[in-house]
Amino acid sequence: MSATSGSPTRPVIPVYLVGAGLVGTQVLHQITLPHIAARLRIDVISNSKYQLEVAATSDRSNIGNILTLLPSSSSTSPKPVPEGFKVTKHTLEGFVQGLTQAESGGPRLLIDCTSSQIVAELYPQLLRSGISVVTPNKKAFSSSQALFADIQKSKSRRGLVYQESTVGAGLPIISTLNDLIATGDKINKIEGVLSGTLSYIFNEFSRPVKGGKAQSFSEIVKIAKEQGYTEPHPADDLSGSDVARKLCILSRLVPTLPALEKGFESVPTETLIPSELANIATGAEFVERLPEFDEHFEAMRKEAEDAGQVLRYVGVIDAKKGRVKCGLERYAFDHPFASSLSGSDNIISFHTARYAKRPLIVQGAGAGADVTAMGVVADCIRVAERLL
Amino acid sequence: MSATSGSPTRPVIPVYLVGAGLVGTQVLHQITLPHIAARLRIDVISNSKYQLEVAATSDRSNIGNILTLLPSSSSTSPKPVPEGFKVTKHTLEGFVQGLTQAESGGPRLLIDCTSSQIVAELYPQLLRSGISVVTPNKKAFSSSQALFADIQKSKSRRGLVYQESTVGAGLPIISTLNDLIATGDKINKIEGVLSGTLSYIFNEFSRPVKGGKAQSFSEIVKIAKEQGYTEPHPADDLSGSDVARKLCILSRLVPTLPALEKGFESVPTETLIPSELANIATGAEFVERLPEFDEHFEAMRKEAEDAGQVLRYVGVIDAKKGRVKCGLERYAFDHPFASSLSGSDNIISFHTARYAKRPLIVQGAGAGADVTAMGVVADCIRVAERLL
Repeated sequence: MSATSGSPTRPVIPVYLVGAGLVGTQVLHQITLPHIAARLRIDVISNSKYQLEVAATSDRSNIGNILTLLPSSSSTSPKPVPEGFKVTKHTLEGFVQGLTQAESGGPRLLIDCTSSQIVAELYPQLLRSGISVVTPNKKAFSSSQALFADIQKSKSRRGLVYQESTVGAGLPIISTLNDLIATGDKINKIEGVLSGTLSYIFNEFSRPVKGGKAQSFSEIVKIAKEQGYTEPHPADDLSGSDVARKLCILSRLVPTLPALEKGFESVPTETLIPSELANIATGAEFVERLPEFDEHFEAMRKEAEDAGQVLRYVGVIDAKKGRVKCGLERYAFDHPFASSLSGSDNIISFHTARYAKRPLIVQGAGAGADVTAMGVVADCIRVAERLL
Repeated sequence: MSATSGSPTRPVIPVYLVGAGLVGTQVLHQITLPHIAARLRIDVISNSKYQLEVAATSDRSNIGNILTLLPSSSSTSPKPVPEGFKVTKHTLEGFVQGLTQAESGGPRLLIDCTSSQIVAELYPQLLRSGISVVTPNKKAFSSSQALFADIQKSKSRRGLVYQESTVGAGLPIISTLNDLIATGDKINKIEGVLSGTLSYIFNEFSRPVKGGKAQSFSEIVKIAKEQGYTEPHPADDLSGSDVARKLCILSRLVPTLPALEKGFESVPTETLIPSELANIATGAEFVERLPEFDEHFEAMRKEAEDAGQVLRYVGVIDAKKGRVKCGLERYAFDHPFASSLSGSDNIISFHTARYAKRPLIVQGAGAGADVTAMGVVADCIRVAERLL
């Protein structure tokens, strides 16, 4: 594979993308905008089974067409590709390790749009080889403390890591937290609705009902599943583990907090899965049985409403007490988490020594391929600005 | 003055600070935190009359003590300073021009914490000399289009400009807008409460009153003035020109909008100053006469309230129509600008092609020395990351 970094007068960074799904595709569309393509050149696009190499001299302006040359990971017999392109079968691990072994003088960049633990565990090796990493993949930052520490240790002036889209997609959350800490602010508390799915479910379920009958919890989950807002198995959202991963990522950026040795598994996390439904195999069956527990959820909703409050599933980092946890909390009707939240929006508030009276708040869509890709590509631009 | 950029093994950027007021002082405290001081070294601290040079070898760890060595701009006979420091009388213009004439191989950085038009007009010259500029000073970006264009043209890989704190202090507003645009999003509308003073005044004035009597407009302005929330002459806030400057800054980042030839003066701006009070010389007299116009403001408030709305003074960029304007608008009680805004907070919403259903919102304190300095110092870190 070519690792030339362009002519000496117009330096350009070779880019390798792994994970050509919805987010990866959007990343490719944004990163081939002419002003970005002048500095970042897509050299390889890959999925779990195949890699498509693009010669330095090939035209990249129609990335949609180029993408059709990459065989799907379920394909068994790849079609021939035109000159200037090359398809190879690979394993993800072999592909990424191959990058670290290739000779290269200049800066290089891997964009990881998979949700692969295998790729995440190769970040230290990539960084030590001088390959920067930009990713929305939460795994590397929310698994064991050992992996996280290894990544921090392996970073260098040539091996950078950017991860804005690991929390809240394109919303400026990671960069804001980093700026607060780097400039010496003291974090008191970080609190956020960090799951688009759970945001939608509780925005629908827990809105004050003026007359009429509130929708039941199970009905809302059913609709959310039908509309594609949940994972195929809604229990994967209701477990809270996605929120726990994001909270783990944020808390590791706050230097005063204790290490979470087992990553997101070390975050105390309230599950919304009724214990009787803990081992239901399919999403369909889960949704079918959920109505048995509507009374339980309705009682919680009613109790909150009677107190002038709504339910929200939030992640909370109490930096003063050194505590991190995910679970259901209640917020007064006029709290920003109640009054101004709707749809599947994320919202996060940073309470700090400087933002003491009222927090710094960021709100907006926290999921979706286009906004996730935006966070990724903005990070790629920062890498180019630093390395070129 | 020394322009050495440290030993070859530990490169460091010499930093010149102009404007040692409240914000400048906070910047100095943050920028001398050890992990930042390792890359950015304060070499000169100056006000409109004097400059204090700090030798490369002098200890900077107690910046509070060092600051006492800079004579106040009203001082006529500076006291002697210890070895390793040097005080010189100067003009702002002479000082900044002197920097551009000094010999230097490495990167250098000017932090402009003044609100000086003179300094702003020297940015192109600084940039062409390879001196980067970080500033919360709005002047350079909200005055004539000619100056703004000259700055854009004079930027280079060694002469960078960062200006996060020109809008909303440390809130991530400029960087967010830049990221949206750079990654190819389409701006539809930007709308914001961008003046802390006017935010406070209308949050107090226009909150729904349940029984009891609402405070009058003039009473609220009087209290705001007493508490230091307004300029010494409240008309300087009520004119809306501060909002117009911020709106000009934002709109110039949106490439599809028409140029504002005269800067903020080209922004249609609704003034809240009653025409009869347009030429009142002092803030005290202004506040004394304002009650004559309470009926006028109360009628507007009442009309909004009867429609279930509150008044907010906002800046609006309608990118679809190519229109920019500042003025009073009405928002329904459950709109984020109404329900979740309080105190002197700023709030801004970005409506884009990607954030279409619901906008991306940033909210929090938009003024204050510590949060303004945070935006400045975070920018300085970015300059160091790019130039070292």
